[in-house]
Amino acid sequence: MKKNTKVNAAILIIGNEILSGRTQDTNTSTLATWLNSIGVKVNEVRVVPDIEKIIVDSLNILRKTNDYVFTTGGIGPTHDDITAQSVAKAFSLKYEIHKEAFKILEKYYKPGEFNEGRQKMVWMPKNAELILNPTSGAPGFSVDNVFCLPGVPSILKSMLGGLKNKIVGGNPILSQTISLKTVESEIANSITKIQDQNKDVEIGSYPFFHAGKLGVSIVLRSEYKSKIDDCNSQILKFIKEKKIEIVDR
Amino acid sequence: MKKNTKVNAAILIIGNEILSGRTQDTNTSTLATWLNSIGVKVNEVRVVPDIEKIIVDSLNILRKTNDYVFTTGGIGPTHDDITAQSVAKAFSLKYEIHKEAFKILEKYYKPGEFNEGRQKMVWMPKNAELILNPTSGAPGFSVDNVFCLPGVPSILKSMLGGLKNKIVGGNPILSQTISLKTVESEIANSITKIQDQNKDVEIGSYPFFHAGKLGVSIVLRSEYKSKIDDCNSQILKFIKEKKIEIVDR
Repeated sequence: MKKNTKVNAAILIIGNEILSGRTQDTNTSTLATWLNSIGVKVNEVRVVPDIEKIIVDSLNILRKTNDYVFTTGGIGPTHDDITAQSVAKAFSLKYEIHKEAFKILEKYYKPGEFNEGRQKMVWMPKNAELILNPTSGAPGFSVDNVFCLPGVPSILKSMLGGLKNKIVGGNPILSQTISLKTVESEIANSITKIQDQNKDVEIGSYPFFHAGKLGVSIVLRSEYKSKIDDCNSQILKFIKEKKIEIVDR
Repeated sequence: MKKNTKVNAAILIIGNEILSGRTQDTNTSTLATWLNSIGVKVNEVRVVPDIEKIIVDSLNILRKTNDYVFTTGGIGPTHDDITAQSVAKAFSLKYEIHKEAFKILEKYYKPGEFNEGRQKMVWMPKNAELILNPTSGAPGFSVDNVFCLPGVPSILKSMLGGLKNKIVGGNPILSQTISLKTVESEIANSITKIQDQNKDVEIGSYPFFHAGKLGVSIVLRSEYKSKIDDCNSQILKFIKEKKIEIVDR
Protein backbone atom coordinates (compact mmCIF):
# COMPACT_ATOMS: atom_id res chain seq x y z
CA MET A 1 0.00 0.00 0.00
CA LYS A 2 1.19 3.48 -0.79
CA LYS A 3 1.99 6.05 1.83
CA ASN A 4 -0.39 8.94 1.65
CA THR A 5 1.44 11.67 3.49
CA LYS A 6 2.13 15.02 1.89
CA VAL A 7 5.60 16.22 2.70
CA ASN A 8 6.61 19.75 1.79
CA ALA A 9 9.64 21.99 1.86
CA ALA A 10 10.77 25.56 1.42
CA ILE A 11 14.04 26.70 -0.13
CA LEU A 12 15.84 29.76 1.23
CA ILE A 13 18.45 31.09 -1.19
CA ILE A 14 20.87 33.32 0.72
CA GLY A 15 23.03 35.76 -1.19
CA ASN A 16 23.28 39.34 -2.47
CA GLU A 17 24.68 38.02 -5.75
CA ILE A 18 21.32 36.48 -6.70
CA LEU A 19 19.36 39.62 -5.78
CA SER A 20 21.70 41.86 -7.77
CA GLY A 21 21.23 39.71 -10.87
CA ARG A 22 24.97 38.99 -11.04
CA THR A 23 24.49 35.28 -10.46
CA GLN A 24 21.76 33.16 -11.99
CA ASP A 25 20.38 30.80 -9.32
CA THR A 26 20.25 27.21 -10.50
CA ASN A 27 20.08 25.56 -7.08
CA THR A 28 16.29 25.95 -6.85
CA SER A 29 15.79 23.82 -9.93
CA THR A 30 18.36 21.21 -8.77
CA LEU A 31 16.89 20.94 -5.29
CA ALA A 32 13.26 20.94 -6.44
CA THR A 33 13.84 18.20 -9.01
CA TRP A 34 15.66 16.06 -6.47
CA LEU A 35 13.08 16.67 -3.73
CA ASN A 36 10.24 15.72 -6.09
CA SER A 37 11.97 12.45 -6.84
CA ILE A 38 11.92 11.54 -3.14
CA GLY A 39 8.33 12.67 -2.57
CA VAL A 40 8.89 16.16 -1.18
CA LYS A 41 7.00 19.05 -2.77
CA VAL A 42 8.52 22.54 -2.75
CA ASN A 43 5.89 25.01 -1.57
CA GLU A 44 7.87 28.19 -1.60
CA VAL A 45 11.24 29.70 -2.44
CA ARG A 46 12.63 32.91 -0.99
CA VAL A 47 15.79 34.73 -1.98
CA VAL A 48 17.17 36.98 0.75
CA PRO A 49 20.28 39.16 1.16
CA ASP A 50 23.27 38.51 3.45
CA ILE A 51 21.61 40.30 6.37
CA GLU A 52 21.33 38.37 9.62
CA LYS A 53 17.97 39.67 10.82
CA ILE A 54 16.31 38.90 7.49
CA ILE A 55 17.78 35.39 7.37
CA VAL A 56 16.73 34.69 10.97
CA ASP A 57 13.19 35.98 10.44
CA SER A 58 12.76 34.07 7.17
CA LEU A 59 14.04 30.85 8.75
CA ASN A 60 11.70 31.21 11.70
CA ILE A 61 8.70 31.55 9.41
CA LEU A 62 9.66 28.84 6.93
CA ARG A 63 10.76 26.17 9.41
CA LYS A 64 7.42 26.34 11.21
CA THR A 65 5.27 26.18 8.07
CA ASN A 66 7.17 23.47 6.19
CA ASP A 67 8.34 19.95 6.94
CA TYR A 68 11.82 20.82 5.70
CA VAL A 69 13.77 23.95 4.88
CA PHE A 70 16.83 23.89 2.65
CA THR A 71 19.17 26.88 2.63
CA THR A 72 21.82 27.50 -0.01
CA GLY A 73 24.79 29.83 0.28
CA GLY A 74 26.59 31.67 3.03
CA ILE A 75 28.60 28.83 4.56
CA GLY A 76 32.03 29.75 3.21
CA PRO A 77 34.95 31.46 4.97
CA THR A 78 34.34 35.15 4.16
CA HIS A 79 32.63 38.01 6.04
CA ASP A 80 29.48 37.72 3.90
CA ASP A 81 28.97 34.05 4.89
CA ILE A 82 26.60 34.34 7.83
CA THR A 83 24.23 31.39 7.42
CA ALA A 84 25.58 29.32 10.34
CA GLN A 85 25.43 32.17 12.85
CA SER A 86 21.93 33.05 11.60
CA VAL A 87 20.67 29.48 12.03
CA ALA A 88 22.15 29.42 15.56
CA LYS A 89 20.27 32.62 16.34
CA ALA A 90 17.02 31.37 14.82
CA PHE A 91 17.12 28.30 17.07
CA SER A 92 18.64 30.17 20.09
CA LEU A 93 21.64 27.84 20.03
CA LYS A 94 25.27 28.59 20.83
CA TYR A 95 27.44 29.32 17.76
CA GLU A 96 30.65 27.38 18.34
CA ILE A 97 33.39 25.21 16.87
CA HIS A 98 32.00 21.86 15.69
CA LYS A 99 34.58 19.29 16.77
CA GLU A 100 33.82 16.69 14.09
CA ALA A 101 33.87 19.33 11.33
CA PHE A 102 37.18 20.61 12.73
CA LYS A 103 38.68 17.13 12.50
CA ILE A 104 37.41 16.64 8.96
CA LEU A 105 38.94 19.87 7.69
CA GLU A 106 42.18 19.45 9.68
CA LYS A 107 42.62 16.14 7.86
CA TYR A 108 41.41 17.52 4.49
CA TYR A 109 43.97 20.33 4.25
CA LYS A 110 47.74 19.94 4.07
CA PRO A 111 49.61 20.69 7.31
CA GLY A 112 49.64 24.43 7.92
CA GLU A 113 46.84 25.15 5.41
CA PHE A 114 43.94 24.92 7.85
CA ASN A 115 44.23 28.63 8.59
CA GLU A 116 41.99 31.08 10.45
CA GLY A 117 39.87 31.80 7.35
CA ARG A 118 39.14 28.12 6.81
CA GLN A 119 38.50 27.54 10.50
CA LYS A 120 35.50 29.89 10.22
CA MET A 121 33.78 27.10 8.26
CA VAL A 122 33.66 24.81 11.32
CA TRP A 123 31.74 27.34 13.44
CA MET A 124 28.17 26.02 13.57
CA PRO A 125 25.09 25.95 15.78
CA LYS A 126 25.68 23.70 18.85
CA ASN A 127 24.99 20.02 18.11
CA ALA A 128 24.46 20.58 14.39
CA GLU A 129 24.49 17.38 12.33
CA LEU A 130 27.01 17.41 9.52
CA ILE A 131 26.20 16.98 5.83
CA LEU A 132 29.34 15.58 4.25
CA ASN A 133 30.94 17.30 1.29
CA PRO A 134 32.73 14.93 -1.11
CA THR A 135 33.88 17.79 -3.37
CA SER A 136 35.63 20.41 -1.30
CA GLY A 137 35.76 19.18 2.28
CA ALA A 138 33.79 21.80 4.19
CA PRO A 139 30.59 20.15 5.41
CA GLY A 140 27.08 21.56 5.42
CA PHE A 141 24.94 20.95 8.47
CA SER A 142 21.40 20.52 9.70
CA VAL A 143 19.57 21.65 12.80
CA ASP A 144 16.16 20.09 13.37
CA ASN A 145 14.34 20.43 10.00
CA VAL A 146 16.71 23.03 8.51
CA PHE A 147 19.41 21.77 6.11
CA CYS A 148 22.20 24.15 5.14
CA LEU A 149 23.98 23.63 1.84
CA PRO A 150 26.60 25.64 -0.04
CA GLY A 151 25.83 28.07 -2.86
CA VAL A 152 28.26 26.68 -5.46
CA PRO A 153 26.01 24.49 -7.65
CA SER A 154 28.48 21.67 -8.34
CA ILE A 155 29.31 21.30 -4.63
CA LEU A 156 25.64 21.39 -3.64
CA LYS A 157 24.84 18.66 -6.17
CA SER A 158 27.58 16.42 -4.83
CA MET A 159 26.12 16.65 -1.31
CA LEU A 160 22.57 15.55 -2.11
CA GLY A 161 23.42 11.85 -2.06
CA GLY A 162 24.50 12.12 1.57
CA LEU A 163 21.22 13.80 2.48
CA LYS A 164 18.93 11.11 1.17
CA ASN A 165 18.54 9.03 4.32
CA LYS A 166 17.92 12.16 6.42
CA ILE A 167 14.84 13.24 4.48
CA VAL A 168 11.63 11.23 4.73
CA GLY A 169 9.43 11.94 1.74
CA GLY A 170 5.87 11.00 0.90
CA ASN A 171 4.86 9.39 -2.36
CA PRO A 172 7.05 10.58 -5.22
CA ILE A 173 5.33 13.21 -7.34
CA LEU A 174 4.93 11.75 -10.81
CA SER A 175 4.78 13.89 -13.90
CA GLN A 176 3.93 13.47 -17.55
CA THR A 177 4.27 16.01 -20.34
CA ILE A 178 2.33 16.17 -23.60
CA SER A 179 3.58 18.72 -26.10
CA LEU A 180 1.12 19.99 -28.66
CA LYS A 181 1.36 21.94 -31.89
CA THR A 182 -1.15 24.57 -30.88
CA VAL A 183 -1.49 27.80 -28.93
CA GLU A 184 -2.79 28.06 -25.38
CA SER A 185 -5.97 29.91 -26.29
CA GLU A 186 -7.09 27.00 -28.53
CA ILE A 187 -7.04 24.51 -25.69
CA ALA A 188 -7.70 26.71 -22.63
CA ASN A 189 -11.38 25.76 -22.25
CA SER A 190 -10.83 22.02 -22.73
CA ILE A 191 -7.95 21.97 -20.24
CA THR A 192 -9.97 23.97 -17.71
CA LYS A 193 -12.75 21.37 -17.89
CA ILE A 194 -10.28 18.52 -17.41
CA GLN A 195 -8.66 20.31 -14.46
CA ASP A 196 -12.09 20.85 -12.85
CA GLN A 197 -12.86 17.13 -13.14
CA ASN A 198 -9.43 15.99 -11.90
CA LYS A 199 -8.61 17.81 -8.70
CA ASP A 200 -5.86 15.36 -7.70
CA VAL A 201 -3.82 16.18 -10.77
CA GLU A 202 -2.02 19.51 -11.09
CA ILE A 203 -2.28 20.53 -14.74
CA GLY A 204 0.12 23.16 -16.04
CA SER A 205 0.11 24.77 -19.47
CA TYR A 206 3.37 26.19 -20.81
CA PRO A 207 3.85 27.76 -24.23
CA PHE A 208 7.22 27.05 -25.83
CA PHE A 209 9.26 28.50 -28.67
CA HIS A 210 12.10 26.11 -29.19
CA ALA A 211 14.28 25.16 -32.15
CA GLY A 212 11.86 26.80 -34.55
CA LYS A 213 8.88 24.97 -33.07
CA LEU A 214 6.01 26.75 -31.40
CA GLY A 215 3.61 24.91 -29.17
CA VAL A 216 2.25 24.23 -25.70
CA SER A 217 3.45 21.67 -23.19
CA ILE A 218 0.77 20.29 -20.90
CA VAL A 219 2.30 18.99 -17.68
CA LEU A 220 0.34 16.56 -15.49
CA ARG A 221 1.61 16.13 -11.93
CA SER A 222 0.21 13.86 -9.24
CA GLU A 223 1.27 11.19 -6.81
CA TYR A 224 -1.24 8.83 -8.47
CA LYS A 225 -0.20 7.22 -11.75
CA SER A 226 -3.76 6.14 -12.55
CA LYS A 227 -5.08 9.68 -12.22
CA ILE A 228 -2.40 11.02 -14.53
CA ASP A 229 -3.40 8.29 -17.01
CA ASP A 230 -7.07 9.34 -16.77
CA CYS A 231 -6.20 12.95 -17.51
CA ASN A 232 -3.93 11.90 -20.31
CA SER A 233 -6.77 9.93 -21.97
CA GLN A 234 -9.10 12.90 -21.69
CA ILE A 235 -6.48 15.14 -23.30
CA LEU A 236 -5.84 12.63 -26.11
CA LYS A 237 -9.58 12.55 -26.73
CA PHE A 238 -10.06 16.31 -27.14
CA ILE A 239 -6.92 16.83 -29.22
CA LYS A 240 -8.13 14.11 -31.59
CA GLU A 241 -11.47 15.91 -31.90
CA LYS A 242 -9.73 19.24 -32.48
CA LYS A 243 -7.16 17.65 -34.82
CA ILE A 244 -4.23 18.97 -32.77
CA GLU A 245 -0.89 17.29 -33.41
CA ILE A 246 1.42 15.92 -30.69
CA VAL A 247 5.03 17.05 -31.13
CA ASP A 248 8.39 16.14 -29.64
CA ARG A 249 10.10 18.68 -27.51
CA MET B 1 23.78 66.96 -7.08
CA LYS B 2 22.91 63.33 -6.81
CA LYS B 3 19.62 62.04 -5.54
CA ASN B 4 20.07 60.19 -2.30
CA THR B 5 16.92 58.14 -2.05
CA LYS B 6 17.03 54.38 -1.67
CA VAL B 7 14.43 52.73 -3.83
CA ASN B 8 13.74 49.03 -3.41
CA ALA B 9 11.67 46.30 -4.97
CA ALA B 10 10.52 42.74 -4.49
CA ILE B 11 10.02 40.16 -7.24
CA LEU B 12 7.19 37.66 -7.00
CA ILE B 13 7.67 34.70 -9.36
CA ILE B 14 4.32 32.97 -9.84
CA GLY B 15 4.25 29.42 -11.19
CA ASN B 16 4.22 25.75 -10.22
CA GLU B 17 6.72 25.03 -13.00
CA ILE B 18 9.48 26.89 -11.13
CA LEU B 19 8.71 25.18 -7.80
CA SER B 20 8.69 21.73 -9.42
CA GLY B 21 12.12 22.33 -10.93
CA ARG B 22 10.77 21.81 -14.44
CA THR B 23 11.55 25.37 -15.49
CA GLN B 24 14.68 27.28 -14.58
CA ASP B 25 13.74 30.85 -13.64
CA THR B 26 15.80 33.44 -15.47
CA ASN B 27 13.46 36.39 -14.99
CA THR B 28 14.88 37.23 -11.55
CA SER B 29 18.30 37.85 -13.00
CA THR B 30 16.89 39.84 -15.96
CA LEU B 31 14.70 42.02 -13.76
CA ALA B 32 17.33 42.53 -11.04
CA THR B 33 20.00 43.59 -13.53
CA TRP B 34 17.64 46.01 -15.22
CA LEU B 35 16.33 47.42 -11.94
CA ASN B 36 19.87 47.99 -10.68
CA SER B 37 20.64 49.96 -13.80
CA ILE B 38 17.81 52.38 -13.03
CA GLY B 39 18.64 52.67 -9.32
CA VAL B 40 16.22 50.15 -7.83
CA LYS B 41 17.60 47.53 -5.46
CA VAL B 42 15.91 44.14 -5.22
CA ASN B 43 15.42 43.30 -1.53
CA GLU B 44 13.64 39.99 -1.82
CA VAL B 45 12.38 37.39 -4.28
CA ARG B 46 9.63 34.89 -3.60
CA VAL B 47 8.51 32.01 -5.77
CA VAL B 48 4.94 30.90 -5.12
CA PRO B 49 2.56 28.34 -6.66
CA ASP B 50 -0.55 29.05 -8.76
CA ILE B 51 -2.77 29.27 -5.67
CA GLU B 52 -4.84 32.42 -5.28
CA LYS B 53 -4.68 32.79 -1.51
CA ILE B 54 -0.89 32.46 -1.47
CA ILE B 55 -0.47 34.99 -4.29
CA VAL B 56 -2.84 37.46 -2.60
CA ASP B 57 -1.14 37.12 0.81
CA SER B 58 2.35 37.44 -0.69
CA LEU B 59 1.33 40.52 -2.68
CA ASN B 60 -0.19 42.17 0.35
CA ILE B 61 3.02 41.73 2.34
CA LEU B 62 5.44 42.67 -0.43
CA ARG B 63 3.60 45.73 -1.76
CA LYS B 64 3.56 47.32 1.69
CA THR B 65 7.23 46.68 2.48
CA ASN B 66 8.71 47.63 -0.90
CA ASP B 67 8.55 50.65 -3.20
CA TYR B 68 7.78 48.37 -6.14
CA VAL B 69 6.68 44.79 -6.67
CA PHE B 70 7.20 42.98 -9.98
CA THR B 71 5.31 39.78 -10.64
CA THR B 72 6.14 37.35 -13.42
CA GLY B 73 3.89 34.64 -14.81
CA GLY B 74 0.22 33.76 -14.68
CA ILE B 75 -1.18 36.28 -17.15
CA GLY B 76 -1.87 33.93 -20.07
CA PRO B 77 -5.19 32.43 -21.23
CA THR B 78 -5.25 29.10 -19.34
CA HIS B 79 -6.86 27.97 -16.07
CA ASP B 80 -3.54 28.17 -14.21
CA ASP B 81 -3.11 31.87 -15.09
CA ILE B 82 -4.58 33.59 -12.05
CA THR B 83 -2.34 36.59 -11.46
CA ALA B 84 -4.83 39.25 -12.62
CA GLN B 85 -7.68 37.96 -10.46
CA SER B 86 -5.28 37.65 -7.51
CA VAL B 87 -4.06 41.25 -7.87
CA ALA B 88 -7.69 42.42 -8.06
CA LYS B 89 -8.42 40.57 -4.83
CA ALA B 90 -5.27 41.89 -3.10
CA PHE B 91 -6.36 45.48 -3.83
CA SER B 92 -10.13 44.77 -3.37
CA LEU B 93 -10.78 45.87 -6.93
CA LYS B 94 -13.31 44.56 -9.43
CA TYR B 95 -11.92 41.98 -11.89
CA GLU B 96 -13.33 42.99 -15.26
CA ILE B 97 -12.73 43.42 -18.97
CA HIS B 98 -10.15 46.15 -19.63
CA LYS B 99 -11.51 48.09 -22.60
CA GLU B 100 -8.18 49.36 -23.92
CA ALA B 101 -6.61 45.88 -23.67
CA PHE B 102 -9.66 44.45 -25.48
CA LYS B 103 -9.16 46.93 -28.33
CA ILE B 104 -5.45 46.14 -28.57
CA LEU B 105 -5.99 42.39 -28.84
CA GLU B 106 -9.02 42.72 -31.13
CA LYS B 107 -6.76 44.61 -33.52
CA TYR B 108 -3.76 42.29 -32.95
CA TYR B 109 -5.53 39.06 -33.95
CA LYS B 110 -6.97 38.25 -37.35
CA PRO B 111 -10.79 38.52 -37.58
CA GLY B 112 -12.35 35.57 -35.77
CA GLU B 113 -9.17 34.65 -33.89
CA PHE B 114 -9.85 36.72 -30.79
CA ASN B 115 -11.65 33.81 -29.17
CA GLU B 116 -12.88 33.17 -25.64
CA GLY B 117 -9.49 31.79 -24.49
CA ARG B 118 -7.67 34.90 -25.67
CA GLN B 119 -10.32 37.19 -24.24
CA LYS B 120 -9.39 35.92 -20.77
CA MET B 121 -6.18 37.92 -21.14
CA VAL B 122 -8.06 41.24 -21.10
CA TRP B 123 -9.67 40.57 -17.71
CA MET B 124 -7.81 42.76 -15.26
CA PRO B 125 -8.24 44.65 -12.00
CA LYS B 126 -10.44 47.74 -12.53
CA ASN B 127 -8.48 50.76 -13.79
CA ALA B 128 -5.26 48.79 -14.23
CA GLU B 129 -2.63 50.64 -16.29
CA LEU B 130 -1.41 48.67 -19.28
CA ILE B 131 2.19 47.65 -19.92
CA LEU B 132 2.50 47.25 -23.67
CA ASN B 133 3.78 44.03 -25.19
CA PRO B 134 5.66 44.51 -28.48
CA THR B 135 6.23 40.76 -28.89
CA SER B 136 2.94 38.93 -28.58
CA GLY B 137 0.20 41.51 -28.13
CA ALA B 138 -1.24 40.66 -24.73
CA PRO B 139 -0.35 43.50 -22.37
CA GLY B 140 0.83 43.29 -18.79
CA PHE B 141 -0.58 45.76 -16.30
CA SER B 142 0.11 47.67 -13.13
CA VAL B 143 -2.00 48.58 -10.13
CA ASP B 144 -0.48 51.12 -7.76
CA ASN B 145 3.09 49.88 -7.12
CA VAL B 146 2.54 46.34 -8.44
CA PHE B 147 3.70 45.59 -12.00
CA CYS B 148 2.58 42.34 -13.61
CA LEU B 149 4.69 40.84 -16.37
CA PRO B 150 4.52 37.56 -18.29
CA GLY B 151 6.57 34.49 -17.44
CA VAL B 152 8.04 33.83 -20.90
CA PRO B 153 11.54 35.37 -20.63
CA SER B 154 11.79 36.77 -24.17
CA ILE B 155 8.40 38.49 -23.87
CA LEU B 156 9.20 39.88 -20.43
CA LYS B 157 12.47 41.33 -21.74
CA SER B 158 10.72 43.05 -24.62
CA MET B 159 8.35 44.80 -22.20
CA LEU B 160 10.94 46.40 -19.93
CA GLY B 161 11.56 49.34 -22.26
CA GLY B 162 7.94 50.39 -21.93
CA LEU B 163 8.19 50.30 -18.14
CA LYS B 164 11.09 52.65 -17.80
CA ASN B 165 9.19 55.92 -17.39
CA LYS B 166 6.83 54.34 -14.86
CA ILE B 167 9.56 53.43 -12.38
CA VAL B 168 11.37 56.17 -10.48
CA GLY B 169 14.70 54.86 -9.23
CA GLY B 170 17.30 56.31 -6.89
CA ASN B 171 20.96 56.56 -7.74
CA PRO B 172 22.04 53.67 -9.96
CA ILE B 173 23.87 50.98 -8.02
CA LEU B 174 27.39 50.81 -9.39
CA SER B 175 29.45 47.68 -9.29
CA GLN B 176 33.04 46.69 -9.87
CA THR B 177 34.53 43.21 -9.91
CA ILE B 178 38.13 42.19 -9.21
CA SER B 179 38.94 38.55 -9.91
CA LEU B 180 41.88 37.05 -8.06
CA LYS B 181 43.94 33.90 -8.42
CA THR B 182 43.48 32.81 -4.83
CA VAL B 183 41.08 31.01 -2.52
CA GLU B 184 38.58 32.71 -0.22
CA SER B 185 40.27 31.63 2.99
CA GLU B 186 43.51 33.45 1.98
CA ILE B 187 41.78 36.81 1.72
CA ALA B 188 38.89 36.45 4.18
CA ASN B 189 40.51 38.47 6.98
CA SER B 190 41.71 41.29 4.75
CA ILE B 191 38.32 41.61 3.06
CA THR B 192 36.53 41.57 6.41
CA LYS B 193 38.66 44.52 7.57
CA ILE B 194 37.96 46.45 4.38
CA GLN B 195 34.22 45.76 4.71
CA ASP B 196 34.27 46.96 8.33
CA GLN B 197 35.91 50.24 7.27
CA ASN B 198 33.63 50.78 4.26
CA LYS B 199 30.04 50.39 5.36
CA ASP B 200 28.63 52.15 2.26
CA VAL B 201 30.05 49.51 -0.06
CA GLU B 202 28.57 46.03 -0.21
CA ILE B 203 31.49 43.64 -0.68
CA GLY B 204 30.76 40.14 -1.95
CA SER B 205 33.22 37.29 -2.28
CA TYR B 206 32.45 34.56 -4.83
CA PRO B 207 34.69 31.59 -5.61
CA PHE B 208 34.71 30.55 -9.25
CA PHE B 209 35.78 27.49 -11.22
CA HIS B 210 35.61 28.48 -14.84
CA ALA B 211 37.40 27.37 -17.99
CA GLY B 212 40.07 25.61 -15.96
CA LYS B 213 40.68 28.67 -13.79
CA LEU B 214 40.05 28.69 -10.08
CA GLY B 215 39.77 31.92 -8.16
CA VAL B 216 37.66 34.41 -6.27
CA SER B 217 35.70 37.36 -7.61
CA ILE B 218 35.39 40.29 -5.26
CA VAL B 219 32.33 42.37 -6.12
CA LEU B 220 32.06 45.95 -4.86
CA ARG B 221 28.60 47.53 -5.00
CA SER B 222 27.61 51.04 -3.98
CA GLU B 223 25.82 54.07 -5.31
CA TYR B 224 29.03 56.07 -4.72
CA LYS B 225 31.79 55.71 -7.32
CA SER B 226 34.37 57.31 -5.02
CA LYS B 227 33.69 54.79 -2.26
CA ILE B 228 34.06 51.88 -4.67
CA ASP B 229 37.37 53.42 -5.77
CA ASP B 230 38.54 53.67 -2.13
CA CYS B 231 37.75 50.01 -1.53
CA ASN B 232 39.38 49.03 -4.76
CA SER B 233 42.62 50.80 -3.74
CA GLN B 234 42.60 49.03 -0.38
CA ILE B 235 42.17 45.69 -2.12
CA LEU B 236 44.95 46.41 -4.63
CA LYS B 237 47.20 47.27 -1.67
CA PHE B 238 46.70 44.02 0.22
CA ILE B 239 46.88 41.76 -2.83
CA LYS B 240 50.21 43.40 -3.73
CA GLU B 241 51.47 42.68 -0.20
CA LYS B 242 50.25 39.08 -0.42
CA LYS B 243 51.50 38.68 -3.99
CA ILE B 244 48.07 37.63 -5.27
CA GLU B 245 47.56 37.84 -9.03
CA ILE B 246 44.60 39.54 -10.74
CA VAL B 247 43.01 37.35 -13.42
CA ASP B 248 40.48 37.84 -16.20
CA ARG B 249 37.19 36.09 -15.86
